[in-house]
Amino acid sequence: MKNEMKVLYVYAHPEPKSFNAALKDTALDALKEKGHEVKLSNLYAMKFHPVLKASDFPERKNLDVFNPFFEAIKASKSGAFAPDIKEEMEKVKWADLIIFQFPIYFTAMPAIMKGWIDRILAPGFGFNPITNNAYDTGLFKGKSAMLVTTTGSPKEMYSEGGGHGDLNKHLESITHCVFEFMGMKVLPSHIIYEASSMSRERGAEELEKYKKSLLAI
Amino acid sequence: MKNEMKVLYVYAHPEPKSFNAALKDTALDALKEKGHEVKLSNLYAMKFHPVLKASDFPERKNLDVFNPFFEAIKASKSGAFAPDIKEEMEKVKWADLIIFQFPIYFTAMPAIMKGWIDRILAPGFGFNPITNNAYDTGLFKGKSAMLVTTTGSPKEMYSEGGGHGDLNKHLESITHCVFEFMGMKVLPSHIIYEASSMSRERGAEELEKYKKSLLAI
Repeated sequence: MKNEMKVLYVYAHPEPKSFNAALKDTALDALKEKGHEVKLSNLYAMKFHPVLKASDFPERKNLDVFNPFFEAIKASKSGAFAPDIKEEMEKVKWADLIIFQFPIYFTAMPAIMKGWIDRILAPGFGFNPITNNAYDTGLFKGKSAMLVTTTGSPKEMYSEGGGHGDLNKHLESITHCVFEFMGMKVLPSHIIYEASSMSRERGAEELEKYKKSLLAI
Repeated sequence: MKNEMKVLYVYAHPEPKSFNAALKDTALDALKEKGHEVKLSNLYAMKFHPVLKASDFPERKNLDVFNPFFEAIKASKSGAFAPDIKEEMEKVKWADLIIFQFPIYFTAMPAIMKGWIDRILAPGFGFNPITNNAYDTGLFKGKSAMLVTTTGSPKEMYSEGGGHGDLNKHLESITHCVFEFMGMKVLPSHIIYEASSMSRERGAEELEKYKKSLLAI
């Protein structure tokens, strides 16, 4: 990767004293130490509203029936999105690398993070089925993305043959069907299993490991 | 299945004139016609708030650090959840069958539906890792669940070897890792591909097909 990058860090955890918050702080420090420029979207702190809705499109083309896909495609031409969406879109345009950090809720993103994807990575912005811009021709070509996540369940539960199955497979609906879909390069996901029941020592080790992996990007 | 069931229909679409709304109305009529008792959770109409947060737990045990898992396990013993959660939990307890209907956003649930899962199907309610209640010993044993969903992309895109891969595989993070995890029996998902670009005729056919499949449950 190039030496100095613009990094957007999208973060979803409600508790500033949590292990997730410590991971986020470690990341911001490490990325700055490496000389990268960093912007943070702290979704809980921003009170980010995750529900896609008609008022996301202040210049609606069809006022009779609300079709989110149609309105997003139209709005992506004129830029007529709600202010909170536009602000996040500007950060995405700016970024070379986007890191998404969240705790796993039911093998997937918490609603607040899913809503950021639903609303910000709108049709016509990161991809466009009308003009055939997806995957190899995705509109975010040149950008990279990475998931950082914590689980309550142990790794065995989230492995092939375990109760839930391989977590990396579940995460493909993000890494493949969102990131690669929009043309982004996907960095290996950084997963910390059983984070909710770990000792202070293991916590410190995991922070150190995460720091090293970010310094190595 | 037994002849008369209590059915909870959890529905997420913002537009009352949409094809999704027609599917929902068709389902409610068909289920009642069959003699089932039906309750509806219309998430957009209810302005359901999908973000898991500290105030979900009005009798927090740890006021210093908010740990959602810990608070949910505690609250599930006393029932001390926020009123909107308690109301939905009562419907879940009541139901023999829960049907979830939503449009696919990025191979997954829209945020408003994901938040219903995150907040209502709380640790200690549908499953409990502390007491080893999951899968075969899930707490919703005896209940059934079913997904009904529409996609924008064609079926080829959502098949093995297609761009996104098999949609049923992606949906396993719900059907397996939520429903079966909580002990529920999973009925086959009812998927309607390419719903956003279909003709009036195909729309009518799809409503009829859906009605028949519900009458056959």
